Amino acid sequence: MSFFTSRWVEVPEWVAEARAGDPGLPQGFRAAGVAGGLKAAGAKDVGLLVSDSANTVSAARFTRSGVLAAPVLLTQERCRLDGIRAVVANSGNANAATGRRGLEDAARMQGAAAMASMTAEATVAVASTGVIGVPLDVDKAIRGILTARGQLSPAGDGLFAEAIRTTDAFEKAVSWEVALPSGTVRLSAQAKGAGMISPAFATMLCFVQTDAALAPETADLLLGVCVKRSFDRVSVDGQLSTNDTVILQASGASGVEVVPESEDELRLGEALDALLRRMALLIVRDGEGARRVGRVAASGGHEETVVRAARAIANSPLVKAALHGGDPNWGRIAQAVGGALHDMAPLPLDIWIEDVQVCAGGSALPYDAAALAEAVSGPEVEYALRLPGEGAEAEVFFSDLSHDYVTINAEYTT
Amino acid sequence: MSFFTSRWVEVPEWVAEARAGDPGLPQGFRAAGVAGGLKAAGAKDVGLLVSDSANTVSAARFTRSGVLAAPVLLTQERCRLDGIRAVVANSGNANAATGRRGLEDAARMQGAAAMASMTAEATVAVASTGVIGVPLDVDKAIRGILTARGQLSPAGDGLFAEAIRTTDAFEKAVSWEVALPSGTVRLSAQAKGAGMISPAFATMLCFVQTDAALAPETADLLLGVCVKRSFDRVSVDGQLSTNDTVILQASGASGVEVVPESEDELRLGEALDALLRRMALLIVRDGEGARRVGRVAASGGHEETVVRAARAIANSPLVKAALHGGDPNWGRIAQAVGGALHDMAPLPLDIWIEDVQVCAGGSALPYDAAALAEAVSGPEVEYALRLPGEGAEAEVFFSDLSHDYVTINAEYTT
Repeated sequence: MSFFTSRWVEVPEWVAEARAGDPGLPQGFRAAGVAGGLKAAGAKDVGLLVSDSANTVSAARFTRSGVLAAPVLLTQERCRLDGIRAVVANSGNANAATGRRGLEDAARMQGAAAMASMTAEATVAVASTGVIGVPLDVDKAIRGILTARGQLSPAGDGLFAEAIRTTDAFEKAVSWEVALPSGTVRLSAQAKGAGMISPAFATMLCFVQTDAALAPETADLLLGVCVKRSFDRVSVDGQLSTNDTVILQASGASGVEVVPESEDELRLGEALDALLRRMALLIVRDGEGARRVGRVAASGGHEETVVRAARAIANSPLVKAALHGGDPNWGRIAQAVGGALHDMAPLPLDIWIEDVQVCAGGSALPYDAAALAEAVSGPEVEYALRLPGEGAEAEVFFSDLSHDYVTINAEYTT
Repeated sequence: MSFFTSRWVEVPEWVAEARAGDPGLPQGFRAAGVAGGLKAAGAKDVGLLVSDSANTVSAARFTRSGVLAAPVLLTQERCRLDGIRAVVANSGNANAATGRRGLEDAARMQGAAAMASMTAEATVAVASTGVIGVPLDVDKAIRGILTARGQLSPAGDGLFAEAIRTTDAFEKAVSWEVALPSGTVRLSAQAKGAGMISPAFATMLCFVQTDAALAPETADLLLGVCVKRSFDRVSVDGQLSTNDTVILQASGASGVEVVPESEDELRLGEALDALLRRMALLIVRDGEGARRVGRVAASGGHEETVVRAARAIANSPLVKAALHGGDPNWGRIAQAVGGALHDMAPLPLDIWIEDVQVCAGGSALPYDAAALAEAVSGPEVEYALRLPGEGAEAEVFFSDLSHDYVTINAEYTT
């Protein structure tokens, strides 16, 4: 993946990409990705990521689905979430809707990864992604973990990212240097996305590492704030997953301590914000079948209403198909808002597409159709919605709806 | 459209299709459909439907969208909804998000239709369907109305149905004879659907006529109950429209009076129920790009939860794409339920596909994959979901998500 740019992600000036010769992971971390046989044809499907520091601090967020996968339940119930040392993740099977056996399989993965990482089981998080409702072939996963143990490397982040892919078209791994006032730290992340991506926070897997030294409260605060502005604001298909997991680990191996309410914390926070927004946008850009990315920015006087309207636009198959076709059919935006805000007619909506106002006070405005068609033909399209009132804002990023999405999802298990 | 059958619609034994030589409309009604020039290439786009009886009784239901089209606002505000004599409808333009001008255009249509029908403006309902956010060429609509006036006919229901089509692949018109204890009455309906169809009641246009004599309260009660079991329970794409309108008109011209709480009322109600379910299923079957129809039947202890889960399944693009591909990937049903019922894990779901149980207590069951793949390859597929508890039930009918849906909606205005 070449260096990503989007007008919607501002990278702070104290952030630089890791130099070419550097290992991808921050000090204290090693990772590996191997083919355990869960996916067909020798594709990588088991990843292991380990922090060697006993003082590793972590924070985590999970899907809010009412149907939680076994690894999510296990990690939530049996891990010290502020002290996760190792992450074991597999693709090819979500280990979801698999009952007691699924929990036992997840526990076996946790045990094997604890052995491989030479750490306690309670410090090992388990994550899975893939098909739902099929028992996991846990022996293959465990053999993969044992193989991965021998291949752990500070440069293993790319292979780890490859091992967590499902329908992702490209792997998502970023490695940065962040110049803080107290010294330079590293910040890296690996993610997977593609389908079953909905704006109800995580909805994918993302693992984030830094060698900064953070208190658990700082890690939790930073992750919580940044997830709300990134993974909580993307939609590929409006479908909340059973397995979403985001974990931030801080090894402290750089010796740079980030004290609460310091300039260090502020700068690291802004870097983490840019990193997670980048990963979130990569997930949208690599949404199943996606060719274009839209951003809706909604404003108005009522927080919940503004968020609901923005999400309705981002999740509308009609808006998504119009984005796909480069069709400036803004009536579908009005329709999606109306559908989300029942019984509130008449709504005096203002709508802009790429800074061209097309609707004022709920009523169509004349516009230069050729110019607007040109404006919506690019890879990124921005929609703005203004509802009555002031003070509340929400943005959601979304992919288009394409023939390829249908093809991918009509023939996923068969 | 040949005689429709579905295992999901039971037609009462006192209902028969109108005989071949009969006019399609009940006594007292006339209709026409003409090409006014709103659609390209001479396609019909203006429909007029008139009851000649001054004592006509009616009932109506409208979309709950927060963005109401001008004809919906006008009809709600300026019509005697229990005494609608005439309906004027156009396709090719929804007259939505068109502001004050849109209201004036709708009023001009109402005025022209009142003249053409020789009735008062307050007894004329206006309905529009088509693109949103483009001013209506009202002069063409009015010329269409004047042309239609000269072509009104008791057999005009098919042309009227044709004139309200947008992306519908076939027209939806049904004409029945209903044998009540007090005498035989006629019952007919014309509908349009295809896209922007969501389970929040109407979400399309449907006009229903009978020559039975009904009190306004009876008409309203029967329509309300039957809409809840039909148009409120279908989804093509989960997108609530700005224009949905359902109108029932009773001319009384048969002389058969349907008294409240009589056997007549019961039988007419069951016939209306079957008719609206049939029209609703026709809309799903003709959903944009649709090739298969699914039915989800959910049960459990809590009404709102059961409805929410059923709708989430019906609206899930992953479930819809799997239906399209004939893929028995029931994990997506579990996922959709989890996404709809936040923070309720673990949910002990039971799931059946075509009577094959695939999930018990939230956990996968072994099943004959080949037999199930065969079972989901037909034109209708049934899914059952059981949540904890008893007493509440909900069903939703939905179409699949196909390449053609994307094609239709990526290139609708351009």
